[in-house]
Amino acid sequence: MQHPTTAREDVTQAACTALARLRETAPRVHCITNAVAQNFTANVLLALGCVPSMTLSAAEVGGFVAGTQALLVNLGTFDAERRQATELAIKAASERKLPWVLDPVFVDRSQPRAEFARALIASGPSVVRLNRGEFAAIAGTNPSPDALAAFAGDNKIVVGLSGETDTVADGQRIACIANGHKLMSRVTAMGCAVSAITAACLAVERDGFVATAAALIMAGVGGEIAGDKAQGPGSFAVGILDALYSLDAAAVAARARVS
Amino acid sequence: MQHPTTAREDVTQAACTALARLRETAPRVHCITNAVAQNFTANVLLALGCVPSMTLSAAEVGGFVAGTQALLVNLGTFDAERRQATELAIKAASERKLPWVLDPVFVDRSQPRAEFARALIASGPSVVRLNRGEFAAIAGTNPSPDALAAFAGDNKIVVGLSGETDTVADGQRIACIANGHKLMSRVTAMGCAVSAITAACLAVERDGFVATAAALIMAGVGGEIAGDKAQGPGSFAVGILDALYSLDAAAVAARARVS
Amino acid sequence: MQHPTTAREDVTQAACTALARLRETAPRVHCITNAVAQNFTANVLLALGCVPSMTLSAAEVGGFVAGTQALLVNLGTFDAERRQATELAIKAASERKLPWVLDPVFVDRSQPRAEFARALIASGPSVVRLNRGEFAAIAGTNPSPDALAAFAGDNKIVVGLSGETDTVADGQRIACIANGHKLMSRVTAMGCAVSAITAACLAVERDGFVATAAALIMAGVGGEIAGDKAQGPGSFAVGILDALYSLDAAAVAARARVS
Repeated sequence: MQHPTTAREDVTQAACTALARLRETAPRVHCITNAVAQNFTANVLLALGCVPSMTLSAAEVGGFVAGTQALLVNLGTFDAERRQATELAIKAASERKLPWVLDPVFVDRSQPRAEFARALIASGPSVVRLNRGEFAAIAGTNPSPDALAAFAGDNKIVVGLSGETDTVADGQRIACIANGHKLMSRVTAMGCAVSAITAACLAVERDGFVATAAALIMAGVGGEIAGDKAQGPGSFAVGILDALYSLDAAAVAARARVS
Repeated sequence: MQHPTTAREDVTQAACTALARLRETAPRVHCITNAVAQNFTANVLLALGCVPSMTLSAAEVGGFVAGTQALLVNLGTFDAERRQATELAIKAASERKLPWVLDPVFVDRSQPRAEFARALIASGPSVVRLNRGEFAAIAGTNPSPDALAAFAGDNKIVVGLSGETDTVADGQRIACIANGHKLMSRVTAMGCAVSAITAACLAVERDGFVATAAALIMAGVGGEIAGDKAQGPGSFAVGILDALYSLDAAAVAARARVS
Repeated sequence: MQHPTTAREDVTQAACTALARLRETAPRVHCITNAVAQNFTANVLLALGCVPSMTLSAAEVGGFVAGTQALLVNLGTFDAERRQATELAIKAASERKLPWVLDPVFVDRSQPRAEFARALIASGPSVVRLNRGEFAAIAGTNPSPDALAAFAGDNKIVVGLSGETDTVADGQRIACIANGHKLMSRVTAMGCAVSAITAACLAVERDGFVATAAALIMAGVGGEIAGDKAQGPGSFAVGILDALYSLDAAAVAARARVS
């Protein structure tokens, strides 16, 4: 099976365009996310110019989602309240054809969570963003390029796989993004925040493959800029917020490593 | 209708006095606040020398509030647990005549939340701190000076309105505070933290109008000091904690812009 | 009653060994902790090379704990979900003889919490880490060296008492650790994070007395390094994450103040 590689220039340009649109349009992004990630996720979205909301209340989550441009569902806190909120949020998103991202955190460590994730994938997310262990737990196979393409194609989703090199696949196209910094794995909720950036990019870019690649580039380049100055994970977490706030097309174009 | 402007010197001096009292008396402030804001709010209060508590448990929230000097009720997480905790906390505060602040976060995006906020205002907060959209959602009118004064007077509360310039009104008096920094709107829970500072000031200053003005001045001046060195919202959020910790009467007197 | 003082060199060496083992083995540590502390606690554990998890869901907490090397139970959020998760987590830990740490936050301000803490102590934690007021609330006496030793011996636990000087006691041995920095008390969840470091050390050091002393040394030395550069509590909280990430045996040996 052949996977036509997307031209580096196209994807990089799309990331620059998405970044500019985030600042111009300030999209609202609703996040059902885990308790550890909520604060950092909100700050990442604010740094990029978005307007985050996080409510889980059954009385209002549908209304909140209806007023947004994209939704994130992150399974990192797997409680009854969030499971109910997730169903209501997806219903509201589906009714308005809003794009949504699933981040199946730690499904490789919890069977009930993996089952819930599989059911959610059947309900039509635009993108599933996850790491290698989480992919294996859901797909039942290691994330080779062919496996990613097959899983994406079968489920009509885009897969955004995090790792030392990130991979984006949608069944037809595949892209590898080699940006990032080792300290990203030493800050809690960094992956969760990248999924939120993906949702934000979906709010301003309808092609889910392009939006996901754009988000991974932004996050990776932001991480590299933060890593240049960081003394450790504390200053890195602060620095990536500063970097994302100041990120511009020149830095993205200079640093993006797409193949 | 005339609103006698409070003298700049009086309000500035009151902010300096409140700041000194916070450090001397280390008041306990109980916060029922949203999940995104809890950590930052606690750190802001600690930076100013206060002792925050955050429990929501029905078994103990009344006892916690009874041992504090002021209460914050923030509606940013609108779940059943917090609604119950809010009722118990307000009951405990009312029995001991403790001052409390209402922060009706995002009532402009949720009808059930707006209704709950209106009911809470009827139960006697000292101060309602909110932004323009939230005021409009509750009061049914835009926040002109007359509308603020009328709403404050009718409900026997102080209104602390955040915006590019903050406004404090209590029906008789009005003050405008032009301190602050643009990055304050790029850090999640910054407004929530300002409401917590307001509760802290109420613990050491019985005049709610003066306490609210003092809190907005402290927060705004702290934001300006942080903004002088910040590289973006990440370092700004860190810097405002440092600035509030080191804030002194000289900085407040030099920077306060009250009219 | 005599308490043989543990040799400074032994404890300091044990802290260096535990630190190296954390980096080599990357132990998984499950934390049932309060909402305010979750993010900072996870970041402290990541900075030291551990893999934190935080789920509270009854459907999966047992399975998560079973896959870890140590457990933290922190009572700072005293809700029904966490009480249930605590019982399931302790059951899973007991079945696998995993060490666990109890941090009875604010038991001095809540009678129901103090009762729950006493019941948990009867169910066999390795270590109870707490401050003076919390000790007094549980033990019914002030934390003199004799009282610490008696309480530790009677309950077959190690007591790790935080204060200007920390004290570790297990009924036979006692150690005092004079490291730390005044800004540690101005950052929310700092004590909670120290308890998490204690759990991490138990994952790599079976002697609970030594593990607790090692954890208090690491945290205190990390705090001193952060304090050397901090401008206030904001930069201090960032700096201690950086310091723990870079902490090495040389710094521990040079700075440890054990008696």
